[in-house]
Amino acid sequence: MIPADSNPSGDANAPVPTETQPPPSTLALRRVAIDTWRENVAYLHRDCEVYRAEGFQALSKIEVRANGRQILATLNVVDDAAIVGCHELGLSEDAFAQLAAVDGHVVSVSQAEPPSSIAALFRKINGERLDRDEFAAIVRDIAGHRYSKIELTAFVVACNRGELDREEVYFLTEAMVASGRRLDWHEPLVVDKHCIGGIPGNRTSMLVVPIVAAHGLLCPKTSSRAITSPAGTADTMEVLANVELPFARLDAIVREFRGCLAWGGTADISPADDVLISVERPLSIDSPGQMVASILSKKVAAGSTHLVLDVPIGPTAKVRSMPEAQRLRRLFEYVARRMHLSLDVVITDGRQPIGDGIGPVLEARDVMRVLENDPRASNDLRQKSLRLAGRLIECDPDVRGGDGFAVARDILDSGRALARMNAIIVAQGSKNFDHNHPQLGVLTHDVCATQSGTVTGIDNFQIARIARLAGAPNVKGAGVDLFHKLGAVVKSGEPLYRVHASFPADLEFARHASTRASGYSIGAAADVPHVFVEF
Amino acid sequence: MIPADSNPSGDANAPVPTETQPPPSTLALRRVAIDTWRENVAYLHRDCEVYRAEGFQALSKIEVRANGRQILATLNVVDDAAIVGCHELGLSEDAFAQLAAVDGHVVSVSQAEPPSSIAALFRKINGERLDRDEFAAIVRDIAGHRYSKIELTAFVVACNRGELDREEVYFLTEAMVASGRRLDWHEPLVVDKHCIGGIPGNRTSMLVVPIVAAHGLLCPKTSSRAITSPAGTADTMEVLANVELPFARLDAIVREFRGCLAWGGTADISPADDVLISVERPLSIDSPGQMVASILSKKVAAGSTHLVLDVPIGPTAKVRSMPEAQRLRRLFEYVARRMHLSLDVVITDGRQPIGDGIGPVLEARDVMRVLENDPRASNDLRQKSLRLAGRLIECDPDVRGGDGFAVARDILDSGRALARMNAIIVAQGSKNFDHNHPQLGVLTHDVCATQSGTVTGIDNFQIARIARLAGAPNVKGAGVDLFHKLGAVVKSGEPLYRVHASFPADLEFARHASTRASGYSIGAAADVPHVFVEF
Repeated sequence: MIPADSNPSGDANAPVPTETQPPPSTLALRRVAIDTWRENVAYLHRDCEVYRAEGFQALSKIEVRANGRQILATLNVVDDAAIVGCHELGLSEDAFAQLAAVDGHVVSVSQAEPPSSIAALFRKINGERLDRDEFAAIVRDIAGHRYSKIELTAFVVACNRGELDREEVYFLTEAMVASGRRLDWHEPLVVDKHCIGGIPGNRTSMLVVPIVAAHGLLCPKTSSRAITSPAGTADTMEVLANVELPFARLDAIVREFRGCLAWGGTADISPADDVLISVERPLSIDSPGQMVASILSKKVAAGSTHLVLDVPIGPTAKVRSMPEAQRLRRLFEYVARRMHLSLDVVITDGRQPIGDGIGPVLEARDVMRVLENDPRASNDLRQKSLRLAGRLIECDPDVRGGDGFAVARDILDSGRALARMNAIIVAQGSKNFDHNHPQLGVLTHDVCATQSGTVTGIDNFQIARIARLAGAPNVKGAGVDLFHKLGAVVKSGEPLYRVHASFPADLEFARHASTRASGYSIGAAADVPHVFVEF
Repeated sequence: MIPADSNPSGDANAPVPTETQPPPSTLALRRVAIDTWRENVAYLHRDCEVYRAEGFQALSKIEVRANGRQILATLNVVDDAAIVGCHELGLSEDAFAQLAAVDGHVVSVSQAEPPSSIAALFRKINGERLDRDEFAAIVRDIAGHRYSKIELTAFVVACNRGELDREEVYFLTEAMVASGRRLDWHEPLVVDKHCIGGIPGNRTSMLVVPIVAAHGLLCPKTSSRAITSPAGTADTMEVLANVELPFARLDAIVREFRGCLAWGGTADISPADDVLISVERPLSIDSPGQMVASILSKKVAAGSTHLVLDVPIGPTAKVRSMPEAQRLRRLFEYVARRMHLSLDVVITDGRQPIGDGIGPVLEARDVMRVLENDPRASNDLRQKSLRLAGRLIECDPDVRGGDGFAVARDILDSGRALARMNAIIVAQGSKNFDHNHPQLGVLTHDVCATQSGTVTGIDNFQIARIARLAGAPNVKGAGVDLFHKLGAVVKSGEPLYRVHASFPADLEFARHASTRASGYSIGAAADVPHVFVEF
């Protein structure tokens, strides 16, 4: 292993011992309207004097300064003055926004120093254990967009598959919290719930938040949008209300209603996590260490003191066996303890989707049916939400252990949860969603049973995939509506679920996928898999 | 670990069960003059119908077809019709060239299937052993540009640090050979030499080739350009002659002169290696497995039957201890045997640069001085080249073991090596280089000893870095000229080496780096490190 080919310190202001001075490394800023997705790209014309004088090469990192700000960007070399001229520096949309300067502003550029944590990264690539300071340095550089996609990927892969011991996971979590804003609600009890994911439907947060908020617990829930799933809580809540709120507004809503259901992307909470996700997702990397650091860093930074964590287990869930679930629980508990977060891990039934609908509008419909105590409400969604809310309510020292579920049920049955939800919807900005007439995609395709028997399996992954192909979550009304769940007896030719789409090409993709594999298994009643979990 | 979120098969021609047909996914091709460096990038306008209909997202991979060819590209979304219009598909320079169609040509686009080897990649990321077919599939996809930079990096990092056993290294090597063109010279003996790198100067190939070719051995040497070093053999040879030749011309030169010194980039030899290098270099990954696969695949694909491999060892060389060198030698020998390549690994003195000059013109000067038996010739460069040439000459069954060195020396001393070199230069296209008046960078800076004593160390890495900062290899006349080597006695204030540059900023960067660390250690004569190697 040779050391990296590092760059000079760029002390360009030192006296130059010749008469010819180098050209000043300043250029006029130009916004290049290309969306390069989380990677800052700078465009320099091949004939640019600065490019020549500084010896830049395609794909080297450069540092751009203006307005007292500095950003790092990957260099693309351009041969077309219509994109960027010889005296200009172009920046892709994201990078341009980060620099917060106007078109034509004078910017100075130089070769970037390699990130100061690069030696620690190389040590991790070579399988060594890192200490607290090294994790802090790496995560600081990641949050500061100082890592290239290559370096990010190298970090993620080098930390994968048990390469982090539990103390390293703690160091990583702590560093991720420190990489962004940390909220303090100035209350002793701030509750949250989270699911490790992988189960379509499963919109329990939209029921748990109004229930526990109505009970009086502070539950400032920020949620994510879907990345690989057909809907995130933020996507579904967006059917009902505005979810992109300035932080001050969010803060006021939480103080007034004890809860909110907003998108977390604007709050600068654990920003390194968002950067890491951009490479973890394409690689389907979801190792225990990275999952723990990602989830717990977000919760601690958001100011939570008590967390109920939903770990579904099943043949097509993220966690497929009880020993695996227990190992994951122990890791979560170790790191939570080091972070002074009170954690209650609940291992739940992950054999099939929760609720009936998969996709933003369908899931919003299911949530509202439960809140309104509609007879069509999905029972598994109701029961699971009540149990999770009950566990959180038991964090309240005034509630006796074991009474949480009954308290939650009273709040739901009495309509207080619905009232609180409606108040939050109005406060965030209502979309006037009518769950009795949901705007579903008008193109439909029914997938039917090819034999009679009992539903013995529903493949979470395949159902999610079909819903995504149908257009979810970008097309809000697209998705899959399940007519039968595990254990149901169906006849050959009877519809199992309906695909909704808004565009013919989307419907065609989903139809094609469902023909190759419907996601349903039909068999004998005795073949329904059992899982032994709390709920 | 959840499975990847894969894309549909894209069977867009199947009957669509509605009246609204999706728009045909065809667009007009447009060359976008952006050099994205080995990554194919496609640009689609945000309002493009196809973008909407196909549900593309920024950074998803798309497949572009025209002329019976198809390429894969990463999608960037554009909001400026001056770059790409609503009915156009833009391609970056490399991608445009690969598709080999003209501006305005009709292209069809679809979402790309994930590479078929992606499941094998995920298995490797999770630390599993792969078989021959899996390596073949991965390397085929890499050579076909079907991997994103994220996937490439994941593969490289997952294969790093002993994660490949020796049979896996063989599978990888074999797959890399199969990924491109394989030359057959129709001769029983085709020789080559190679160095694992890391030693500045060290231009032995430019001496070994004319010597062994003059002896009559076939030595079709293709070389690389520098990536992180101050000069590759191709960069230095380019000072003397044209090195970018069409393959047919190269072939004719080799047949006439028994050797050549050309750039290997145009020959489609082990193309997967070039793609892998684009992520290995930024991460300074140079693991034994990857080094062996990279070097041996190039040599086998180029048709070599006999290879002499130079493995320098020293405190600032790639290999720093004899046990490490022996482990590397055994791995090289195992894979070479499986590939039916006769291999002679020579462990050499890597304590300091070989020759005096570092940088293309300076190294070309050193080479020509040796060939012309000039009294100023660098003795270590001459001796090392003769020994390596001697080892190759002993592959000739008519030469007795142990006689190679003397045969090589006779060829050099008699001027036959010079004559052969001149013939090759003329055949490739002479640049009329005059080594007595080399065109060196006119801006200079002398680095002087800060104390009197013996030179006890020369840091290969720091000297290479200073030469690069001075402008090498892009500025041919830039670099470092060493005045003293290990064991020399110097006085305080006496120049140790001279930096040559052509641009003031370059000189300033190099001067600054040399002030922070000159790369020279001065001490007592007894402190000169010893290495016990063959030569």
